[in-house]
Amino acid sequence: MPVPRIVIAGGGFGGVYAARALERVLRPGEAEFCLVNRENYFVFQPLLPEVISGSIGLLDTVSPIRRLCPRTNLYVREVERIDLERRVVVLAPGLRRRALELAYDFLVLAPGTLTDLSGMPGLAEHALSFRTLGDALRLRNRALEAIEEAANETDTDFRRSLLTFVVAGGGFSGVEVIAELNDFLRGAARHFPSIRREEIHCVLVHSGERILPEMAPDLAKYAQRILTRRGVTLKLKARVKAATADSVILNTGETIPARTLVSTAPAGATPLIASLDCAKEKGRLRVNASLELEGHSGCVWALGDGASIRMAGGETAPPTAQHATREAELVAQNIAAVMRGGVQKTFQFGGLGKLGSLGHHSAVAEVFGFKISGFLAWLLWRSVYFAKMPGLDRKFRVGLDWLTALIFPADLVQLRVQTSGNITYEHFETGEAVFQQGDAGDRLYVIRNGRVEVLRDGVSVAVLGPGESFGEMALLNSAPRNATVRALEPTDAMAIAKGDLAKLLANFPALHSGLTQLAGSRAQSP
Amino acid sequence: MPVPRIVIAGGGFGGVYAARALERVLRPGEAEFCLVNRENYFVFQPLLPEVISGSIGLLDTVSPIRRLCPRTNLYVREVERIDLERRVVVLAPGLRRRALELAYDFLVLAPGTLTDLSGMPGLAEHALSFRTLGDALRLRNRALEAIEEAANETDTDFRRSLLTFVVAGGGFSGVEVIAELNDFLRGAARHFPSIRREEIHCVLVHSGERILPEMAPDLAKYAQRILTRRGVTLKLKARVKAATADSVILNTGETIPARTLVSTAPAGATPLIASLDCAKEKGRLRVNASLELEGHSGCVWALGDGASIRMAGGETAPPTAQHATREAELVAQNIAAVMRGGVQKTFQFGGLGKLGSLGHHSAVAEVFGFKISGFLAWLLWRSVYFAKMPGLDRKFRVGLDWLTALIFPADLVQLRVQTSGNITYEHFETGEAVFQQGDAGDRLYVIRNGRVEVLRDGVSVAVLGPGESFGEMALLNSAPRNATVRALEPTDAMAIAKGDLAKLLANFPALHSGLTQLAGSRAQSP
Repeated sequence: MPVPRIVIAGGGFGGVYAARALERVLRPGEAEFCLVNRENYFVFQPLLPEVISGSIGLLDTVSPIRRLCPRTNLYVREVERIDLERRVVVLAPGLRRRALELAYDFLVLAPGTLTDLSGMPGLAEHALSFRTLGDALRLRNRALEAIEEAANETDTDFRRSLLTFVVAGGGFSGVEVIAELNDFLRGAARHFPSIRREEIHCVLVHSGERILPEMAPDLAKYAQRILTRRGVTLKLKARVKAATADSVILNTGETIPARTLVSTAPAGATPLIASLDCAKEKGRLRVNASLELEGHSGCVWALGDGASIRMAGGETAPPTAQHATREAELVAQNIAAVMRGGVQKTFQFGGLGKLGSLGHHSAVAEVFGFKISGFLAWLLWRSVYFAKMPGLDRKFRVGLDWLTALIFPADLVQLRVQTSGNITYEHFETGEAVFQQGDAGDRLYVIRNGRVEVLRDGVSVAVLGPGESFGEMALLNSAPRNATVRALEPTDAMAIAKGDLAKLLANFPALHSGLTQLAGSRAQSP
Repeated sequence: MPVPRIVIAGGGFGGVYAARALERVLRPGEAEFCLVNRENYFVFQPLLPEVISGSIGLLDTVSPIRRLCPRTNLYVREVERIDLERRVVVLAPGLRRRALELAYDFLVLAPGTLTDLSGMPGLAEHALSFRTLGDALRLRNRALEAIEEAANETDTDFRRSLLTFVVAGGGFSGVEVIAELNDFLRGAARHFPSIRREEIHCVLVHSGERILPEMAPDLAKYAQRILTRRGVTLKLKARVKAATADSVILNTGETIPARTLVSTAPAGATPLIASLDCAKEKGRLRVNASLELEGHSGCVWALGDGASIRMAGGETAPPTAQHATREAELVAQNIAAVMRGGVQKTFQFGGLGKLGSLGHHSAVAEVFGFKISGFLAWLLWRSVYFAKMPGLDRKFRVGLDWLTALIFPADLVQLRVQTSGNITYEHFETGEAVFQQGDAGDRLYVIRNGRVEVLRDGVSVAVLGPGESFGEMALLNSAPRNATVRALEPTDAMAIAKGDLAKLLANFPALHSGLTQLAGSRAQSP
């Protein structure tokens, strides 16, 4: 008899700690564990701001998921959709262009949230978010690119916009990002003889009367004093209303000339949550106190930032790592209880405290009712996260990083991984299949040289040559490939990825009508 | 009176060591130094293969150029072209879309070479090169992606192609890459319970009868034995003839099913060298024994891999770091001699020795006529490069990296910096300029919402709305923008970068004719 399969969707604190707890709570052979995540690593979010200055090695804030949960099968894929009726998780195609279906007996949803940049003009186009390792790297590179450009720029206005950095949102995340960014830029400026330190403007925009609304007023005041003393400009009671490549526009009417804008608020639903047909509350999955998804008791649990959790005491669980890890523990125990015919427990956790780094040996903390600020809070902040970081090798590496950062100045290397873009060239040898009937369609092809044959159910229906395109049907209809295409001779083709094609089609009327005509004429042919 | 300006084009061993030597040889105030490089860092090439396994931190093989040459003005730009007549270096546009002209009194050309993938079908499309930090990261990510995919792949053939890795070229670079890749993959496989170690195939393809033609035959034989024992397959007397996404085709008729191909040979001219109107030899800049560019004595010097250097003894200088750094020293002294009215010296250097790492505590070396292999050679290899690495902080970091790698297994994190692609959305506020007349044209715009006004010499010539495109003229003619475009209301636009547009235009006949028609009709309008 096959063992039950438990699928976990999401590899953040919720998902990874659920897998670790399941590996501990269930005996080997009692169940099979699968975890699906876009990346093969888990990000230790609290230390992510330190990537900006490079005071932590780029890879040292993340841990390979395979190391953290050795008994769990990892699928490095996007979740394309979840069919709660059929109990199937559909994974997006990878290198092999077939979608993969994972049937489950028990499902754990830990999808997290996204930074929602829609709704304000220009933010989706020009603002950076700060959630993933990629985001942290992009911000670091953008900051270095701006300061490198400014070094040789003589136009005063343009120079000012290059050297102005705006962070929107004065919660923990926004404060830690502006503090790290400010420290990093002022340190780096020492190596740019043409840039005076007072030319660097770091601006924190926050809608409330004071930053850090989660903390006691006097700690927030302390944080404001520290940031101001270090040269950060605070814009309180203001919101970012719009952005362009060169400027940030506030609802107060003020326009800040700035090439770099980071938005840390507000959180929105991931496409996966949005597509799920189940009970939600403000874009989060609604669960009961046992963390079961409403309407799917005993089969689906949800946890972490993407779930709306009413605790046993009546209050809502806040979206923090300390809550997510404890929710994960409870979900593992509840699944074991269901499997073994026991009784599920309910979730209740008051939180241990709150910690916020202000960079440069300073922090604020509220622990067990005590309020601490300054160097002592910073030591506490480092110790807590060092202790919480999973994996001995990570602890070792981060320890060495911190040691190195004490001795040497911050790094200035702008790491650009040049990608070839999404319009690429491909080559096929005689007889090779460009794609197979039934494959997931992820790109359109245009032939540059050579000839290909189109086969539907094994029967040749067309031969195409230079300048002709194929593969548009699957993209226009979001259906699997309805034919196999095979090279008749060595063939060179240009491929346009789905996402780019969608942009082109939506905005280039001529291209769209041409392609739909083509698709229409082919659908009618035998 | 202004001091003479010395411009250095290129930031490899040649360029950076020339700047360092100039800063030492010339007194402050005697000349102004400018260095132009695509990246803001210098890559210590000999350690680059270690990035594959992560045994060196990603940023620790590179050093910020500003730290290495503090008195030199760094321009992080591409060189667009060099006008040897007017004595001007033209830099490509950066964030601000204006090309920049740098006039020089003395010019040092250190452009290096490129891996030439053209000429063989499919190589430009599917092979990876191995020269830059970006290349090393891409290879690491590709290897991890392939092994992650293979872990859940049940199709035997596809699985085999995912787990086969081919390196073309058995010189130093090819041997070090296959050795590191093989060690890394076999170590990583331990964390993938579904992958057996014997499923991993690392293949080295080399045209000669033995690898490492630069070394003595018995050392090459030793290297072959070591590699074979570690599981690397050697294909000697064979060349890669073609490649597709799934397979590598050899001139022996054999087809190797493989998703990953790295080409380490042969070197070709950079676009900059190709565009220079001066004497060349096999795609390299021809210089005399004083390293002066032929026909430009006393004004232009060239050095490094991109220069064809006939030494005083008559033989050609090989393309190694030890030669480039000594050429740099000589160029600095020769420039000082010309400035001070002295006599230039000629270049002669026999080389100190040759070192090649075989990974995993093994290497081969020829030093002062001695041949060494195995652990001792590996210790020598590490010591030499550790000593040669510029900058104390790098030494410290690399030392710690090596220490960490001794204790902990290799890292599995697949670092993907997701880029938004080259088709992007932009937002403009009322009155904001999309671009200015005279700017360099680097993208085409299509309006999604809003309206813009086109102004030529300050006079409004057109108003454009949704679905209409602009900016094509500058791209089609490679000319500066011939008009200013300004948003009349908040406007959203799609932008297609020059490179992507070129690909689309060259291969999408319908789009090309439409755009040239449009450009034609606009050129005729007032």
